Amino acid sequence: MNKMIGEQTIKFDSKPKIISSAAIVGPKEGEGPLGEYFDKVLPDSYYQEQTWEKAERKITQETIELLMQKANLSADKIDYLLGGDLLDQTITANFVARKFARPYFGLYGACSTMVEGMILGAMLIDGGYGQRTINFTSSHYQGSERQYRTPNEYGDKYPGYKQWTVTGSGATLLAKDGQGPVVTEATVGKVMDLGVKDPMDMGAAMAPAAADTILQHLNDTNRNPVQYDLIVTGDLGEVGSKLLRELLEDKNIDISEDQDDCGLLIYNSDQGVGAGGSGCGCSAVVTASYLLPYLNNNRFKRLLVVATGALMSPLTFLQGESIPSIAHGIVIENDTQNNA
Amino acid sequence: MNKMIGEQTIKFDSKPKIISSAAIVGPKEGEGPLGEYFDKVLPDSYYQEQTWEKAERKITQETIELLMQKANLSADKIDYLLGGDLLDQTITANFVARKFARPYFGLYGACSTMVEGMILGAMLIDGGYGQRTINFTSSHYQGSERQYRTPNEYGDKYPGYKQWTVTGSGATLLAKDGQGPVVTEATVGKVMDLGVKDPMDMGAAMAPAAADTILQHLNDTNRNPVQYDLIVTGDLGEVGSKLLRELLEDKNIDISEDQDDCGLLIYNSDQGVGAGGSGCGCSAVVTASYLLPYLNNNRFKRLLVVATGALMSPLTFLQGESIPSIAHGIVIENDTQNNA
Repeated sequence: MNKMIGEQTIKFDSKPKIISSAAIVGPKEGEGPLGEYFDKVLPDSYYQEQTWEKAERKITQETIELLMQKANLSADKIDYLLGGDLLDQTITANFVARKFARPYFGLYGACSTMVEGMILGAMLIDGGYGQRTINFTSSHYQGSERQYRTPNEYGDKYPGYKQWTVTGSGATLLAKDGQGPVVTEATVGKVMDLGVKDPMDMGAAMAPAAADTILQHLNDTNRNPVQYDLIVTGDLGEVGSKLLRELLEDKNIDISEDQDDCGLLIYNSDQGVGAGGSGCGCSAVVTASYLLPYLNNNRFKRLLVVATGALMSPLTFLQGESIPSIAHGIVIENDTQNNA
Repeated sequence: MNKMIGEQTIKFDSKPKIISSAAIVGPKEGEGPLGEYFDKVLPDSYYQEQTWEKAERKITQETIELLMQKANLSADKIDYLLGGDLLDQTITANFVARKFARPYFGLYGACSTMVEGMILGAMLIDGGYGQRTINFTSSHYQGSERQYRTPNEYGDKYPGYKQWTVTGSGATLLAKDGQGPVVTEATVGKVMDLGVKDPMDMGAAMAPAAADTILQHLNDTNRNPVQYDLIVTGDLGEVGSKLLRELLEDKNIDISEDQDDCGLLIYNSDQGVGAGGSGCGCSAVVTASYLLPYLNNNRFKRLLVVATGALMSPLTFLQGESIPSIAHGIVIENDTQNNA
């Protein structure tokens, strides 16, 4: 029983259903163009906790609780949790998983974690290893800045090509049975590195990975970009999105009419966010609260979400290394859509 | 098609084969009782690199190359890589994955990563999503000490209950077809936390997770401990192993004749390693170079490997948190063994 099409793409014949999704975001994300779509907008970045790290955990825990509440399911009905985040040793995901006491796979895919978790969740269900999975991820602007760059109080250089880490958590609940958009295909990404070394220029570092995964996906499925209502990348921002289009043009693929980026969708250009949003939370909250409802409402039929992750650390930067990146793609379709 | 037995255990009817395994270790591990079993022992902890982090990457890359060489396979025959390690943002695994350019799932399970990767690899093969997977992990004593505790040059307190991070990398190659021990079952762990806060006492922090997973596994499979040639935990060391036995005795399960620990197997007691070995590399190198060959040679028929991970970070310790832990179990059997 081979479920692969082409070289690198999985076809989920059982079509796992996304029966619930939820997202909670910070105040800046609430002021952006998608503000009204999110389940909850925080009044401030501490959310009544003493540290940003504890605030990120609280947001994530509430997102999962809300996710289960929407589906009218308690934690004991969930077979697996799949989670990860940006903090060292993925402490947000690990501590939140403790609260729900269900079998847990810890992931590290940097900002690609949302789609990595959805792919593995879809496999767990399609393969018969469980009925329901929750995948979740999160990021927090201040917590990330402190860890990756300089103490927040010192401020930091903010060139126009730097992106702004989204404060927020997003989660989806995949199930064998139920109502909702369906996962039909996935293309698992390879680690790419074209030599970008500037950790403020992550969009440029991640664009080659996104290009490779999109190209591979289109080859494997024999489709053109126009056969998707939207090809949406995770957090390439302005710089990375432009580079992605150029890289694909070199291969005679034009996605200019069909592509958008969660990092560009989430903020208004006058919000002082440099080249756009980034962070695990970026593709997670946009997918959970904006894209999936559009599929539910029949405004989209078929979506390719390509979440992108920059796989460096502050230490590798200081040791002079370039930034490896990865992009995982997943196809989500309206439940009434026929396969083409 | 339901592949679950009991509440939390997966049964792999197709029995994915472990067709190759490899491990490279540091000098201290080479001087231990298993020294002669490892594929290679390093002369020093730098291995001709400028930093410990780069040395860990070099060891890991060579382990994977050796693994494929033993199976006479090139990287293009591998469908997925699954990897993770202890360093912030799992940079060893990410940078090594870049070298092989195959579809990659990044994991974070702390010292449970070896078994987490084997379980997901077995699912990918059993579920029909690929033919061959490589899972790999690593740790490095000096790199870990620097990151988790204090700069190595300062020295650090070394109480008798503290464990010694293994320098080494281990990997296995799972395949649909071929010769070798087979993966028959897996029990995915839940995150547990009984409130231990001392990051030097990780054996005690992880013992409850190991107890929970072993108990669940025995319940799900309706087996007794004596039905395994060995139940081997990852890195509980002396303190954690003792606590594990006590926790299971409270549930009327006696594993005293059937259990051992990779952290106790890898060093001699006079090597100055406190309560024994730890780190992602600990269960990885012992499984790859010692336990799997024993299965191959018919000296074992059925093995339960329970890799344990402490899911804290230096930051959570400083913020006063306790240590959440997880344990994943996998059953590996001699290929000629009938299921009982």
